[in-house]
Amino acid sequence: MMTARCDHWVQGVALSPPSLQDNTADADRLIGLLERRLGAKRIYTDLAVMAALPTLLRANAYRVRSIVFGAGDRWDLCAVTADDQKPVLGLAVDLGTTRIVLSLMDLASGRVLGEDSLDNPQLAIGPDILTRIHFSDEGDGLARLQGMVVEGLNQRIETLCRSQATAPERIFLMSLAGNTAMTHLFLGITPRWMIREPYIPAVNRPGLLKARDLGLRLHPDARLFVFPNIGSYFGGDLIAGILHSGLHRREETAILVDVGTNAEVVLGNRDWLMACAGAAGPALEGGVSKIGTMARPGAIDRVTIDPETRRFELHTIDDQPPVGICGSGVIDLAAQLYRVGMLDIRGRLVPEACNGRLVAGPHGPALQIAPPPAGADRKGLTIGQAEFDSLIRSKAAMYTILETIAGAVGMAPRNLKSFFVAGTFGAFIDPESAITIGMLPDLPRECYRTLGNSSLEGAKRVLAEPRLLPQIDAIRDRITYMELNVNQDFMLRFSAAKFLPHTNPELFPSVVAGGGTPGA
Amino acid sequence: MMTARCDHWVQGVALSPPSLQDNTADADRLIGLLERRLGAKRIYTDLAVMAALPTLLRANAYRVRSIVFGAGDRWDLCAVTADDQKPVLGLAVDLGTTRIVLSLMDLASGRVLGEDSLDNPQLAIGPDILTRIHFSDEGDGLARLQGMVVEGLNQRIETLCRSQATAPERIFLMSLAGNTAMTHLFLGITPRWMIREPYIPAVNRPGLLKARDLGLRLHPDARLFVFPNIGSYFGGDLIAGILHSGLHRREETAILVDVGTNAEVVLGNRDWLMACAGAAGPALEGGVSKIGTMARPGAIDRVTIDPETRRFELHTIDDQPPVGICGSGVIDLAAQLYRVGMLDIRGRLVPEACNGRLVAGPHGPALQIAPPPAGADRKGLTIGQAEFDSLIRSKAAMYTILETIAGAVGMAPRNLKSFFVAGTFGAFIDPESAITIGMLPDLPRECYRTLGNSSLEGAKRVLAEPRLLPQIDAIRDRITYMELNVNQDFMLRFSAAKFLPHTNPELFPSVVAGGGTPGA
Repeated sequence: MMTARCDHWVQGVALSPPSLQDNTADADRLIGLLERRLGAKRIYTDLAVMAALPTLLRANAYRVRSIVFGAGDRWDLCAVTADDQKPVLGLAVDLGTTRIVLSLMDLASGRVLGEDSLDNPQLAIGPDILTRIHFSDEGDGLARLQGMVVEGLNQRIETLCRSQATAPERIFLMSLAGNTAMTHLFLGITPRWMIREPYIPAVNRPGLLKARDLGLRLHPDARLFVFPNIGSYFGGDLIAGILHSGLHRREETAILVDVGTNAEVVLGNRDWLMACAGAAGPALEGGVSKIGTMARPGAIDRVTIDPETRRFELHTIDDQPPVGICGSGVIDLAAQLYRVGMLDIRGRLVPEACNGRLVAGPHGPALQIAPPPAGADRKGLTIGQAEFDSLIRSKAAMYTILETIAGAVGMAPRNLKSFFVAGTFGAFIDPESAITIGMLPDLPRECYRTLGNSSLEGAKRVLAEPRLLPQIDAIRDRITYMELNVNQDFMLRFSAAKFLPHTNPELFPSVVAGGGTPGA
Repeated sequence: MMTARCDHWVQGVALSPPSLQDNTADADRLIGLLERRLGAKRIYTDLAVMAALPTLLRANAYRVRSIVFGAGDRWDLCAVTADDQKPVLGLAVDLGTTRIVLSLMDLASGRVLGEDSLDNPQLAIGPDILTRIHFSDEGDGLARLQGMVVEGLNQRIETLCRSQATAPERIFLMSLAGNTAMTHLFLGITPRWMIREPYIPAVNRPGLLKARDLGLRLHPDARLFVFPNIGSYFGGDLIAGILHSGLHRREETAILVDVGTNAEVVLGNRDWLMACAGAAGPALEGGVSKIGTMARPGAIDRVTIDPETRRFELHTIDDQPPVGICGSGVIDLAAQLYRVGMLDIRGRLVPEACNGRLVAGPHGPALQIAPPPAGADRKGLTIGQAEFDSLIRSKAAMYTILETIAGAVGMAPRNLKSFFVAGTFGAFIDPESAITIGMLPDLPRECYRTLGNSSLEGAKRVLAEPRLLPQIDAIRDRITYMELNVNQDFMLRFSAAKFLPHTNPELFPSVVAGGGTPGA
C-alpha cells in the first residue's frame, strides 16, 4: 500500500475518459484513482453514489469532486458532486445538554464560514439529563426527544446556510460531539441502562452514519461522524476536547479539565491517558457551573474588590445592569473576599470585615453585592452563606478529583506543567481566582490555557484535518477510565480541601489571604 | 490480529452480562467478542442494529445470534436476532436473463432448504439484453425494469418461504450472481454505457448492500452481496461459476466454458486466469444454445441412430410426444448423422444415405426426424440444411474461441486435463456428441465435468462457506480479460473448424465418421 496523505475530505479528480484500451467501469475508475491517491487499500461506497456516477461523470467531462471519509483500513466514498463553483460544506456540532453550537465549514479549505447556536430543545422536557433519560423510557419518549434535537438542528442549519447564501443540500459531512447520554438520545438509542447498575451505555462507537437515517436534512448522501464515548460518564465531547488540546501527542504529562455540569478530567501524555468524571462524587451534585445564575446579559461575571477601600468593581455580561452572578463571578467574588479578609479560611463571611454589606436574609445574613436601584425597597443583589458553602464543597470536590487522579500516577497536582481548562464555563474562570480559593492547583499562571468550547473545536478539526481522524480511536483506546470511589481516603482529601485555599497552605504558596500570612 | 475462522455467517454468542467490574457498552461487548472470535480487526455495524441491541440482549439473557459478513479488513455485523428456535435463513439467487433461480438456505448449517425459479419478468419487455438496455434508457424504463425483477423476486421468495413454513423476514443474507447487464438493471444502475463504445459498465464491485434499499422484502436489516463483474461481457455469474468449479485453486491448468446465450470461457489455474467471451464473434450471433427450440416438455433432447438400421431413437423431455428439438438434441442428432454417414464432413445432408427421410421443405430438402402422427397430413418434425449450417457455424465459433484462448498461453485445447462445462444448457450436452461434431476438443471423456447452474452454485457456496468470500475478489483481480479480435487469424481458424469434426482430423483422433476412416 502506498502511503499518501489526505489534506481535505474533498478531493477534486479529473479522470481520464474511458477508451477501448482502458474500459474500467465508472465506479472502479474513480475509486481506483482515489485509492492510489489516498493510499487506501479499499474504498467502499454505496448504491446511491454508484447509481449517480455514470451520468454525473459524463455531464462533467470526467471532472468531479469526491467527498471521502476514512483512515487506514476503512475508507468511504460518501458522495460525488460536480466540479462547479458550488461550495462543498461540512457541519460541526457540539451537542450540549443545555446549548447546541453549530459551525458551518468549507470542506475544501477547512475554513469556518459561520457559527450559530440554539438552546437544546430537550430543555422543554427537563433541564437535566436524568429527567430526559426517564422521559425517553416511556411511550414514544425516545423518538420525541430525538425528534426535538433533529428538528431544532434542521431549522438552525437552514438559517445558518441561508445567512451564508447557501443551502443544507450543500452539506456533505457532519461531525458531532456530545456527552454519552445526549449522543444516545440524538441517535434514538435508549440511554436507560446508563442510569441503572452497572451503568452502561448501549454503544460507544457509533462510527460513520448516514445523516438521512436520522432525519437530518442535508445532502441526501451526507455522512455523519459521531465522536465515540468511553462510557456513561465520559463522552465524545471529551474525546473531541482531548483531540483539540493535543494532550495525547505531548511528551510531557498535562491535564485537561472540562468544567461543565460535571467536572471531567483527563491526565496524560502521548504514551498514556487516564480519565475520570466528577459525576461519581456526591459533593459535586449540582455541579460547579450551577453556582449562581446562568451566564446571561446582566449576570456578574467578573469581580474585583479594592483591598484598601473594599469597594466592589463588578463587570456584567453585555454591560447590562446586574441581575445575578454567574459561576465565574462567584469564584472571583469568593477569591476577592478571601483576599481582603471578608471571607475566612473556612469560607465563612467575617461580619466585622463586611461592615455595611451584610443584610438579613431568610437563612441568615447575606452579603450585598450590588445595591438596590435608587428608590427601590429591595435589598439589591445578595449572596448568602449557603451559596458560599456550596461553592466550597464544589471547589473541594474539584481539587480532590485532581489530587486523586494525579496521585494515581504518583504525581502531585503542582508537578503539572500544562493545565488545559475546557468548556464554555471554563473559558470564563479566572485561574488566579480559582487558585486563590483552592479549586485549581497553584501552578505558574502561564501553565493555564483555556480551550473554550473544545468539544466544538474537536468536531471542527476532524472536518478540517483528515489526518486527525485515526487519532480519535487512538485516544479512545488509550484512555484508562478510573472510577472515582468515594472511599475514606477520598473523603479525607475532600475534607482537607474544604478550606480556603486548603488546610495545607504549602500547596498554595502564592496565595495570601487579606492582610494576613498564608493560612491565617 | 488473531487468525481465526468463521465457519458460518451465523454466530451464536453468549455474552457475560455487564457488571460494575465490566461495564463495556452493549454494542462493544458483542462486537468485541465477535472481533476476537473471528480474528477481525474491526467489525462495523449500523444504527438499526445498535438501537435494537440493548433491549434484545436483556430480553434474551445476553444470548443472541449475530449475522456477520466479511473477510480480512472488512467485517459487518449485519443483524442480531434472538437465540430462539426460529431459522436464520439465506437466499442465493442466479439472476439469469431468461430464468431466475432461488435457493433458500439455512445459514447456521449451510444446508439448502428449498429451491424455486421463475421466468425473468423482464421478458415482457424483451427476450434479449439489448432490448432491455434500450428500454432502460427511456423515461422511467430503468426503474420499471428494476421493479419487475424485485417484485418478481419478492413474490417468489414469499412462496418459497411459505413452502418451508417460514417467512421472508427470516432471511438475513442474500447473495446474487448475474451477468453484468442484469446486475445493473437489478441495482437500478444504468447499463447504457455498456452498449456504447468503449462499452463500459457503471460498476464492477457493487459489494455488500442493504436488501431493503432495493425494495426487497426480507429482514429489515438483511444484507445483499452482489457478485462482482470483470466488465461488460464478463459478469458475476461467471465469477460465481469459477468459485464453484475451484478452477482458481487447482495446480493444473483447466478450462471452464459456460455455454449459454454467449460462450464464456475461462482458462487457468491457481496462479493465473484468462477469460474471454464469445459475444465478440459474429459467428456466434444467435448463440449456441439458440439452435432448435427451447428445452420444454416434448423437446427432443437426446438422439441415437442405429448404425445398421439407421433407425432413430428419440428421447423427449418428460417423455412427451415430440414437438421440437432442443440444442442438446441438435448436437446429438448431428453427431449421430455424421457417424452413420447421413451428414458429410461439410455438414451437408447426404441424400443417398438419407433414404426415405428427406422431405421437400420451403428452403430445399429437410430431414424428417419424427413421422407425423397417424392420419395427419403434416410432414412431421423436420430439420433443414440451414439449421445444420447454423449449428456448424456455432460449433466452429466455439472451437475457435477455445483454440484462441488456449493458443494465447501456448497450449492446444487437447493438452487440457480438466474441462468444466457450466450453464443449464451445458448440463444437457453429451460431450461425446459435442466432440464428434468438433465443438469441444477430443479429450478423454472423463476430463469433462458438467457443473449445472454454476452461477447459482457459487451464490449458494458463499452463503454456506464464509472462507470462500475472499476468493471472490481474488478471482476478480487475477483474471486477465482477453478481447476476442475477429482478425484474419481468427477467421482462418474459424474456417478450418467449419468441418465435421475439423479440417485437421489429427485433432480428433477418436472421432470416426460413418463406415469410413477418420476424416472420410
